[in-house]
Amino acid sequence: MGNSFGRRFRITTFGESHGPAVGVVIDGCPAGLALDLEALQREMDRRRPGQSRITTRRDEADTIEVLSGLYEGRATGAPITLMVRNADPRSADYDHLRHAYRPSHADYTYQVKYGHRDHRGGGRSSARETAARVAAGAVAKQLLAQQGVEVLAWVSAVGDIAMPDEVAPDGVGSFGLAEVEATPVRCPHPATADAMIARIDAVRKAGDTIGGIVSARATSVPAGWGEPVFDKLHAELGRAILSINACKGFEYGSGFAGTHLLGSEHNDLFYRDAEGRIRTRTNHSGGIQGGISNGEAITLRAAFKPVATILRQQPSVDDTGAEVTVEGRGRHDPCVLPRAVPIVEAMMALVLADAMLDAH
Amino acid sequence: MGNSFGRRFRITTFGESHGPAVGVVIDGCPAGLALDLEALQREMDRRRPGQSRITTRRDEADTIEVLSGLYEGRATGAPITLMVRNADPRSADYDHLRHAYRPSHADYTYQVKYGHRDHRGGGRSSARETAARVAAGAVAKQLLAQQGVEVLAWVSAVGDIAMPDEVAPDGVGSFGLAEVEATPVRCPHPATADAMIARIDAVRKAGDTIGGIVSARATSVPAGWGEPVFDKLHAELGRAILSINACKGFEYGSGFAGTHLLGSEHNDLFYRDAEGRIRTRTNHSGGIQGGISNGEAITLRAAFKPVATILRQQPSVDDTGAEVTVEGRGRHDPCVLPRAVPIVEAMMALVLADAMLDAH
Amino acid sequence: MGNSFGRRFRITTFGESHGPAVGVVIDGCPAGLALDLEALQREMDRRRPGQSRITTRRDEADTIEVLSGLYEGRATGAPITLMVRNADPRSADYDHLRHAYRPSHADYTYQVKYGHRDHRGGGRSSARETAARVAAGAVAKQLLAQQGVEVLAWVSAVGDIAMPDEVAPDGVGSFGLAEVEATPVRCPHPATADAMIARIDAVRKAGDTIGGIVSARATSVPAGWGEPVFDKLHAELGRAILSINACKGFEYGSGFAGTHLLGSEHNDLFYRDAEGRIRTRTNHSGGIQGGISNGEAITLRAAFKPVATILRQQPSVDDTGAEVTVEGRGRHDPCVLPRAVPIVEAMMALVLADAMLDAH
Amino acid sequence: MGNSFGRRFRITTFGESHGPAVGVVIDGCPAGLALDLEALQREMDRRRPGQSRITTRRDEADTIEVLSGLYEGRATGAPITLMVRNADPRSADYDHLRHAYRPSHADYTYQVKYGHRDHRGGGRSSARETAARVAAGAVAKQLLAQQGVEVLAWVSAVGDIAMPDEVAPDGVGSFGLAEVEATPVRCPHPATADAMIARIDAVRKAGDTIGGIVSARATSVPAGWGEPVFDKLHAELGRAILSINACKGFEYGSGFAGTHLLGSEHNDLFYRDAEGRIRTRTNHSGGIQGGISNGEAITLRAAFKPVATILRQQPSVDDTGAEVTVEGRGRHDPCVLPRAVPIVEAMMALVLADAMLDAH
Repeated sequence: MGNSFGRRFRITTFGESHGPAVGVVIDGCPAGLALDLEALQREMDRRRPGQSRITTRRDEADTIEVLSGLYEGRATGAPITLMVRNADPRSADYDHLRHAYRPSHADYTYQVKYGHRDHRGGGRSSARETAARVAAGAVAKQLLAQQGVEVLAWVSAVGDIAMPDEVAPDGVGSFGLAEVEATPVRCPHPATADAMIARIDAVRKAGDTIGGIVSARATSVPAGWGEPVFDKLHAELGRAILSINACKGFEYGSGFAGTHLLGSEHNDLFYRDAEGRIRTRTNHSGGIQGGISNGEAITLRAAFKPVATILRQQPSVDDTGAEVTVEGRGRHDPCVLPRAVPIVEAMMALVLADAMLDAH
Repeated sequence: MGNSFGRRFRITTFGESHGPAVGVVIDGCPAGLALDLEALQREMDRRRPGQSRITTRRDEADTIEVLSGLYEGRATGAPITLMVRNADPRSADYDHLRHAYRPSHADYTYQVKYGHRDHRGGGRSSARETAARVAAGAVAKQLLAQQGVEVLAWVSAVGDIAMPDEVAPDGVGSFGLAEVEATPVRCPHPATADAMIARIDAVRKAGDTIGGIVSARATSVPAGWGEPVFDKLHAELGRAILSINACKGFEYGSGFAGTHLLGSEHNDLFYRDAEGRIRTRTNHSGGIQGGISNGEAITLRAAFKPVATILRQQPSVDDTGAEVTVEGRGRHDPCVLPRAVPIVEAMMALVLADAMLDAH
Repeated sequence: MGNSFGRRFRITTFGESHGPAVGVVIDGCPAGLALDLEALQREMDRRRPGQSRITTRRDEADTIEVLSGLYEGRATGAPITLMVRNADPRSADYDHLRHAYRPSHADYTYQVKYGHRDHRGGGRSSARETAARVAAGAVAKQLLAQQGVEVLAWVSAVGDIAMPDEVAPDGVGSFGLAEVEATPVRCPHPATADAMIARIDAVRKAGDTIGGIVSARATSVPAGWGEPVFDKLHAELGRAILSINACKGFEYGSGFAGTHLLGSEHNDLFYRDAEGRIRTRTNHSGGIQGGISNGEAITLRAAFKPVATILRQQPSVDDTGAEVTVEGRGRHDPCVLPRAVPIVEAMMALVLADAMLDAH
Repeated sequence: MGNSFGRRFRITTFGESHGPAVGVVIDGCPAGLALDLEALQREMDRRRPGQSRITTRRDEADTIEVLSGLYEGRATGAPITLMVRNADPRSADYDHLRHAYRPSHADYTYQVKYGHRDHRGGGRSSARETAARVAAGAVAKQLLAQQGVEVLAWVSAVGDIAMPDEVAPDGVGSFGLAEVEATPVRCPHPATADAMIARIDAVRKAGDTIGGIVSARATSVPAGWGEPVFDKLHAELGRAILSINACKGFEYGSGFAGTHLLGSEHNDLFYRDAEGRIRTRTNHSGGIQGGISNGEAITLRAAFKPVATILRQQPSVDDTGAEVTVEGRGRHDPCVLPRAVPIVEAMMALVLADAMLDAH
């Protein structure tokens, strides 16, 4: 289980790294939505491996095939099924790992839980699964765009190289998609981006990996989205983001840094703006109060650990408990952060699309 | 909606701060479980307001009443309903807030979403709702104890006063419940606890509030609990913890600090221990790999902002958009961290009980 | 599990026959709904035992207590909790049944499933649980009334005594609640009612029980409610009705009799009426086509077996497999049909309230 | 929504009659299950159009393609995705129906609900969707077979031509799959089958359609499967069966006929059999008591109306409300009963597989 996400805009993903295909069934997309398949493909291309020298070189065209749910270019209300064929699996690369447990991968826990697993390329636990998320997220984005809601993520830190806070005050900033996409590392601050790229290059040459932070914002979300108590909007966002491979932490609004403030400093004071809208003067709340959006920008940050696949020999054990040495071979991805950006956007869009449909 | 949590061990909470009662229906507790009602009441007492000079003085006996689901002291498999009457609401304290939006409370967002709300004491968004969580969590703890699983939380930081890392290496530590309960601030390191208490006292006198961090661990969780993809065990934990009022951030294992490590440093190497169990030498994974428990301690940290109720005048607006001044009166809770400890434990226990039932 | 029902208007019931209370938590009732508690109590009184000489004499006041969710008489959007205390359990009547399995009761299956059960009065499998359904259904009815939707059920057959078809042509008829409530058997055709009552009296005197059919209709349901594929409106209605104790069959529209017609006879021809509305000339579809309401009256029929509690000695076995004789004592209900009427209405209202909220 | 079914063995179907493909994602199939794909294909062939002269002539190979979830022939615990390409849509046959509402089809209700619909061949409301159900049901059957559970359905009535009751006493009978498959009408009683076939031939020549009844049984279901209260096993079966296109009624055990019995006649008396198992002497309960299986055969009957597509001119309206004449052209299916048999089995198997996983 665990392969479905959302209540009103509900997706179910399927497919393994080295199976015939990965895909997603979207149930609940409102009838009538005109789907821009080229925009959807562009999102896929942002996540695609091999797009720049600082990512993995696995080469997948990732061309979306629509299996159901559209008629004359518009959603019918029936499930929308999107599928991507797996083109370049190189399954033989994994034969030596059939019985070994790679450190900090899901090999061991899958073996304990399922007994029988597809070890090739991580099988279902592979980052390949996120192609389905991005496809679904692209549909969610187009739905949100109808309400004027825009979701944008970017890399704000790689290791200890962090973008200056003043570039994105209160977690928002004035840059847009173009600035994010301007560098392969997807950091909208060129000087920081240069330093990040240099760092990733060094890590790549060392056969090692490095983590970092993806920040994201959603703008023009109206007040009143989300639920109280257990399904608070930020709790759903947290779950969504934490479900991305390699994510180890989540914060919204003031986050961990906010624990250093006093209540009198942290409270966001209400006022009525020139158009008569109720706004807050600061946004420590990250656009959410009591689990419900308050009309300010929704802001979050996600911590990604360095991914586990490194081009080094590491001691481990196999499924009999015997000591073995595992060795990363071939392609590796020194820093997943740039490719995590569209995935974070997708998960954020899925949560917001769900909340949007619930609010209507 | 949003008042239910869990799939196999599923709870639904009800009740407002100033209504007749708060309570919870637990659906899915296995038949035959002998429920220790005294232990359950002790958990309620840990969350209870007025338990020490550093918490709110609202005085509630919070005596649990069992409405259903037990027969001769043991669960029958039918829903277990636990209820606590509201004894000391002082509703009149809130008359002046009927139309005003308190800064960083849920007043405004509830008004936008529901139109009609019980403004007294925060209504459904009140921390009073967490009494129901603690009651349900106490049942979950007793279920987990059958498998030897123990959940413990503690206050690791108040503002910038943090417990030294070496007290809880890898997020675990050798202290237990007794050490946590030894001080009213629930920090198991006495020197740090003293500093925290002094700080909270100062904040209380200033009519202000202060935030901090609650850390938690679950020990003796067997490998194989949790689900892959969207319902990863840490994603469910994140959602659970983030759904607690005032929580702004969540991390597990290496968390945000782990983004500063290289993959070669972060990977947890497997080995077989003396008893033949497969273990990891470090626990950056926080006991979870690929969303599934790996047999190591599950570790997490939660950031709590300073709560919004302060004994000061603050500018705001009312539901007509007019400028008003809101003023906190009477009782306030300068630091929710100590009382958040049993709530964090409860939410962690609920997630693990769900995973336990799913794994069986 | 299995104690919750509905998606958007979601209820969770709790309580055993001989526990302290039975009740229901309603999650999803729209904020602002003004709840008429007297009307709600009247529905409870319709289901209440001891209301006439042809039903069980267990005496319960069944006074509703509101525990949460209302403020100044209107729903707040928070869970509405309704509770009824159990007043007259006579638990000692059941001591002789602690280990015996009564024929065609749930004693044996509960023992197999749960191991530990509350045998008194059927515990959770008791018809007492339906008090909670009727309470929740009464709220659903008030919600539906805002859209003009009315739900009405009646007894159309007791054993082989059936109301003439022409009284309710196409399953609808021109009678209303007053005609249904005019006789204790809740059959709106007085001559048939008299015969039914005489029959039930005879059965009661013989210590036996008798079954029959409850028919129901919902009028003024707009077109477009319900879902396609698995959650078809009639499939949800069927599940709802079949979940009532003693229900053995469900049909809607033409039902089983419709299998005798040809397609050319069964098809409901569309036409545009004087007000320009699209209608059908017949209603074999029972108001639902493709799982979605079409604007005609929704009609259904439910078969209830004779209930299992009879005042006779019957051979059986106990939980060791030994042969025993079980004997019904004290009160028994010769015909549940009249009291099933408000329960059928409640379940129908719950399904329609869910569909209504989903359609908005 | 409404495209998913089941909780533990959960399926999501997708695809329209005239889209590229129909398929199903199965989430929750236990890892390790060896899937017999040839047996699965045989089930598909039983449902396939064009298999005999008494069914529709639409010609589809319906060859199953496995997209995910299997590794070396066995389930991995990941979602199993099965897909069938649509080969012979003849979409042009439907151009004249783009704006017309066919009587007793879902055209009108889909238009009201969705606004934008794929009118070709009924789109999502087409019986084509049931191919996905049969594929998923075939997997469920193989899972159930591991526990020895067998599901079998057959045609027991076509119009007023019914199989004699004594062929299937208590709804079970001693025949098996071979006897059911021996005639194209899938009635295991040859004399009745001959009469049914003659009747269907006559109806086909008249361009008309005819309904009937499918009966089904599940044998070797252990006691203790299913849930109490709302999710009673027979309520889930009822919902499952009623969700099949053209189904108008459902009964289990004694069903509607049982309403004519007295309690003393209807009660199933317990005894201990020679092997020490607790059994009942009769099976009016249909193998389910209190919503939970009792170890006897589970028996049910489903009423199917004559399908709406007839080769005649019928008056109707179009989406502007104007009067039109609709005319069935080309292929039609005079009696869906034979092809409904594998679909009823599939839905029954899906419910039981869910209950089985829940019970373990």
